Amino acid sequence: MQDKNIPYKIYLDENEAPRSWYNVRADMKNKPAPLLNPGTLKPMTAEELGAVFCGELVKQELDDTTAYFEIPEKIREFYKMYRPSPLVRAYCLEKRLDTPAKIYYKFEGNNTSGSHKLNSAIAQAYYAKEQGLKGVTTETGAGQWGTALSMACSYFDLDCRVYMVKVSYEQKPFRREVMRTYGASVTPSPSDLTEVGRKILKLHPGTTGSLGCAISEAVETATKTEGYRYVLGSVLAQVLLHQSVIGLETKTAMDKYGIKPDIIIGCAGGGSNLGGLISPFMGEKLRGEADYRIIAVEPASCPSFTRGRYKYDFCDTGMVCPLAKMYTLGSGFIPAPNHAGGLRYHGMSSILSQLYDDGYMEAISVKQTDVFKAAEQFARAEGILPAPESSHAIKAAIDEALKCKETGEEKTILFGLTGTGYFDMVAYEKFHDNLMDDYIPTDEDLKVGFDGIPDIPMNK
Amino acid sequence: MQDKNIPYKIYLDENEAPRSWYNVRADMKNKPAPLLNPGTLKPMTAEELGAVFCGELVKQELDDTTAYFEIPEKIREFYKMYRPSPLVRAYCLEKRLDTPAKIYYKFEGNNTSGSHKLNSAIAQAYYAKEQGLKGVTTETGAGQWGTALSMACSYFDLDCRVYMVKVSYEQKPFRREVMRTYGASVTPSPSDLTEVGRKILKLHPGTTGSLGCAISEAVETATKTEGYRYVLGSVLAQVLLHQSVIGLETKTAMDKYGIKPDIIIGCAGGGSNLGGLISPFMGEKLRGEADYRIIAVEPASCPSFTRGRYKYDFCDTGMVCPLAKMYTLGSGFIPAPNHAGGLRYHGMSSILSQLYDDGYMEAISVKQTDVFKAAEQFARAEGILPAPESSHAIKAAIDEALKCKETGEEKTILFGLTGTGYFDMVAYEKFHDNLMDDYIPTDEDLKVGFDGIPDIPMNK
Repeated sequence: MQDKNIPYKIYLDENEAPRSWYNVRADMKNKPAPLLNPGTLKPMTAEELGAVFCGELVKQELDDTTAYFEIPEKIREFYKMYRPSPLVRAYCLEKRLDTPAKIYYKFEGNNTSGSHKLNSAIAQAYYAKEQGLKGVTTETGAGQWGTALSMACSYFDLDCRVYMVKVSYEQKPFRREVMRTYGASVTPSPSDLTEVGRKILKLHPGTTGSLGCAISEAVETATKTEGYRYVLGSVLAQVLLHQSVIGLETKTAMDKYGIKPDIIIGCAGGGSNLGGLISPFMGEKLRGEADYRIIAVEPASCPSFTRGRYKYDFCDTGMVCPLAKMYTLGSGFIPAPNHAGGLRYHGMSSILSQLYDDGYMEAISVKQTDVFKAAEQFARAEGILPAPESSHAIKAAIDEALKCKETGEEKTILFGLTGTGYFDMVAYEKFHDNLMDDYIPTDEDLKVGFDGIPDIPMNK
Repeated sequence: MQDKNIPYKIYLDENEAPRSWYNVRADMKNKPAPLLNPGTLKPMTAEELGAVFCGELVKQELDDTTAYFEIPEKIREFYKMYRPSPLVRAYCLEKRLDTPAKIYYKFEGNNTSGSHKLNSAIAQAYYAKEQGLKGVTTETGAGQWGTALSMACSYFDLDCRVYMVKVSYEQKPFRREVMRTYGASVTPSPSDLTEVGRKILKLHPGTTGSLGCAISEAVETATKTEGYRYVLGSVLAQVLLHQSVIGLETKTAMDKYGIKPDIIIGCAGGGSNLGGLISPFMGEKLRGEADYRIIAVEPASCPSFTRGRYKYDFCDTGMVCPLAKMYTLGSGFIPAPNHAGGLRYHGMSSILSQLYDDGYMEAISVKQTDVFKAAEQFARAEGILPAPESSHAIKAAIDEALKCKETGEEKTILFGLTGTGYFDMVAYEKFHDNLMDDYIPTDEDLKVGFDGIPDIPMNK
């Protein structure tokens, strides 16, 4: 059954690994809208951003014309510890689906952080170190990003302060311990370490915290502590730039064996994985050199692409960060409590939002029990236990493969398998015990979030 | 710093993967002592073993002269899903230790079961399927073996019934859910599904179970259910045979780049990983073609090699299985409750016991807080979060590398990194919170186990 000329798993050699990241904005005619200063409503300047982010990262964030950024040698050294990541042909899944489609997945879970987040974490830690900083701050919800960042900081001997949403801190002690193993300090948020934390604790004693609050605490700590900056794991242009390593490796591997994907699928939360995977393919599409169907898959319970509005909005629920133009459900939107997987961000990368608005990609939403069904089907066929996030892409890939079964088409489907589900067994347990439901927000539910989108001239 | 001719991680190509397993017994002058029927005290016959194990596995178990067993194609197909596993040069660890030693590790954690156990699980499931069986039964403590077996059974569409020690079932719900994800039925032991379970529940209501009891339930279910056999994840000669794939890949990779290890280190519980890693190297040593220092590392709290007796003993605490000649602490020995990692088996593979007794390998024991210190040091340097079991080998490798620092010797150290620690964060948490101690059994403690070693003619 195996194609004799193509290995089961394609591992590129070290010398085939990308030496530059690719900045897809360089090939976009309609550039993503700039971040706005929430006070002046003018585009954020390098100086303003420099108070929060490292200098080099600010440059990357603002540069929408340079196509390639060289990956510094020290980052390439680190990448060698877990990259190039394997591109796998899902022979066993294809067989079980009895489909003529050829399914490939790029697997980013083969590192301790268990996800693709490490690709950007190590870059951000590197620039912090180069700038002579002592440390960085961040927030984490489920803990994937916090884990990746703590690993990266440990590598560069950089202090790492993570504000972890209190309910996750208590309910996900294992993620917390992984971060501690890598030397990070993990504080349940809200905490009494920050002004904003103390304020919230006074206002809402007994609160279990929120991502918005944790962001505010992390940003406050970064800006008030000498030698610290704040770092973020998704949404930003710099993050998509770093994550392009996923797509570049995939493209090199496919080109090497003469494989051309017809459909490219990625799960979409803030957009870091999807943006990274599709970057070089999207580049070809933007330049008119090739065509691909590109599909973003999001949870039906947090449908920013499929039901959101394309507006300037706050990036955080605390409304302390710059405004970004993006597909958004409103910074006040919070997915229903039954929502098990990740991908719970209210907005979406500005880059992807613009590409979606321009018709370069599609988006669909899927229900979570269908996602877990697909996850289990994938695990049993391919061995790997997928993260709930990644399983959104699996669900869509399986559906496309089944369509091929009906039509008899031998399409080549590529999807991003962003990570492993070792720390998500509570959700799997719910699924096994039939305690998971498929609540989808009503238009009424969404109205609350939409009403919080700021009423500014740019949104007229 | 990187040796330019040697990749950071050595991945063999598919066509370089072993096509046969290597049976080290073929090169042993002093063969391991045969399993004895506990009733007759005569060597177990193929017929007797066939009531419990699959036919082909019985042949492998009894054959101590055939050097190579071809790996069936379907198993090689499955191996392609996660093998060849990477052989990694620990550059970052070397740098942090500031040692002239060259450290390599063979990483077996890159599959969902998170350990090397899958190598034998898939083989045992295959032979069960080929024999036309409906399913297999087994026991699991921490859950590594049960996870691997459930994956393997899912692949071959075979029923998998796991008896999981009740205390683990309740305290390690995540492992349980992974097994359920792969379709296994997981029963807390003791249960009322078996005679022996009901008997124990009546005798000790409220018991939290033991590995011995779970083995008894699994064996009873296998022998009393049409179309079922029992499978075991360590200790047996067949398991070491399957695990030789670890050592064979390692040797091929090292030979390819002209690397020769001076010291080979593996953690030792029942012996499956250690036996697999060292097999081909030990073969050369037995044939007088090369020399290596080979070191087994065991926990100070369960020191079967370093403080045990070389006697015929029961393989299970329930004393229902055949007798094996091995280094043993007595089947009644149970490690102190503070013992956090795995490697808690009272005995040791008969093959390794004979090789140790003949002076072909050394053994040391290490304290668990030292093991977790080494684990954390390794994680911070190399990125991978190691299983506590594997960390015993890490501890020994670091110690040897530090000796090289003192003497200035550029020794090449190879160790087996058997798996990841994602499901062991409770133990890491204990370590971080200084709640872990280093209790070592006194001679008095050990006497209880030794007194339970049967008084039979072979033990005079």
